[in-house]
Amino acid sequence: MRDKKNRKAIVLLSGGLDSATCVAIAKDNGFECFGLSFDYGQRHSVELAASKKLSEFFQITEHKIIKLDMRNLGGSALTDDIDVPKSKSAEDISDDIPVTYVPARNTIFLSYALGWAEMLSCSDIFIGVNALDYSGYPDCRPEFIESFQRMANLATKRSVTDGPSLRINTPLIDMTKAQIISKGTQLGVDYSLTTSCYDPSNEGHPCEYCDSCLLRAKGFAEAGLTDPALT
Amino acid sequence: MRDKKNRKAIVLLSGGLDSATCVAIAKDNGFECFGLSFDYGQRHSVELAASKKLSEFFQITEHKIIKLDMRNLGGSALTDDIDVPKSKSAEDISDDIPVTYVPARNTIFLSYALGWAEMLSCSDIFIGVNALDYSGYPDCRPEFIESFQRMANLATKRSVTDGPSLRINTPLIDMTKAQIISKGTQLGVDYSLTTSCYDPSNEGHPCEYCDSCLLRAKGFAEAGLTDPALT
Repeated sequence: MRDKKNRKAIVLLSGGLDSATCVAIAKDNGFECFGLSFDYGQRHSVELAASKKLSEFFQITEHKIIKLDMRNLGGSALTDDIDVPKSKSAEDISDDIPVTYVPARNTIFLSYALGWAEMLSCSDIFIGVNALDYSGYPDCRPEFIESFQRMANLATKRSVTDGPSLRINTPLIDMTKAQIISKGTQLGVDYSLTTSCYDPSNEGHPCEYCDSCLLRAKGFAEAGLTDPALT
Repeated sequence: MRDKKNRKAIVLLSGGLDSATCVAIAKDNGFECFGLSFDYGQRHSVELAASKKLSEFFQITEHKIIKLDMRNLGGSALTDDIDVPKSKSAEDISDDIPVTYVPARNTIFLSYALGWAEMLSCSDIFIGVNALDYSGYPDCRPEFIESFQRMANLATKRSVTDGPSLRINTPLIDMTKAQIISKGTQLGVDYSLTTSCYDPSNEGHPCEYCDSCLLRAKGFAEAGLTDPALT
């Protein structure tokens, strides 16, 4: 993390618990935050509504929502008509890469962030990936993020004129869900504004049994806190 | 390049001379080709029309056009209301990175190709980048492509289950424009179907004085051929 100067940062904002905590950490480190969200044919627009509420809550400078044609690529329970798997508890979640995996999703998201970063002359991108409670997605691993950063520092006009100045910040990468929730709570994050469920009801209520709901519940329990989104 | 088996390849298809030659080379190497084009708010739809004609000409298996929200990121003479620079001859083209540069364009294009490659269980992506007559774009350099390939081989489910199997093929990277045109002509490419101009008329006629038109004209002259798109 850089000095506590008023530097710009782009934060990928999914509307979930992790990305909300990420904004709070970026702000706490003195960054002026720009939020980037994607409308990529998710089955529910609950996530985008949450990302808008979080943008207001954190008073970020600009919130951009990019419409992505990813349903065209297909192949995920998050974009197609494939059932989202449910389990009884977080311990029962399969170790396999889940059907909610969207091919190359974080690569595409970070590529857009890279383009916007160049336009803003911004050197920092924040993404709330997590290598512990990461639900098995390959593009949440530290080796992927490091490799993306190396590539990004060869991809742009700025990388030619200014050298390798772009940094992908992953403040949550080594934290458990409980540690993320504790940190965010300490920084004043209002988790009632966030949504984590892969399969919410039409009214936006979480299903409580998808991988993401179970990991969230386990996180709040271990942090000794009550999830304000469930009250 | 791999064996002359009937393997699948995704070819990025801009409708220009380079990408057309790229398809011809991929087919000559025994690949079943899938074309990927992007509708990214170019000022002219001439490129997309050319990519459709080329898809038919090469009888590729599937041609996907992905609509990208890149105008939202702004900052290029190819997507915004910035004048495309004109020169008297190819020798007068500035060495600077030009205003036609679109931030992170090839990174975004290749990221989508990566997602589609995973859906198709396809290990080869072809892109017609060129490090000699490359118009100064940073994301056409070999070091960028190599770095993207390394990142791509950490990004996907397939990279976890099958190891680093994805390959970004750049058959034109060390060729001059004249060599590209000679090679394509030898492979039967109909260059009258291609378009290179950054600033065509409403009827699709090339301006003949943008960087891309000048490099194309120089290429045909050096190859001792007449450009069929100008007759």
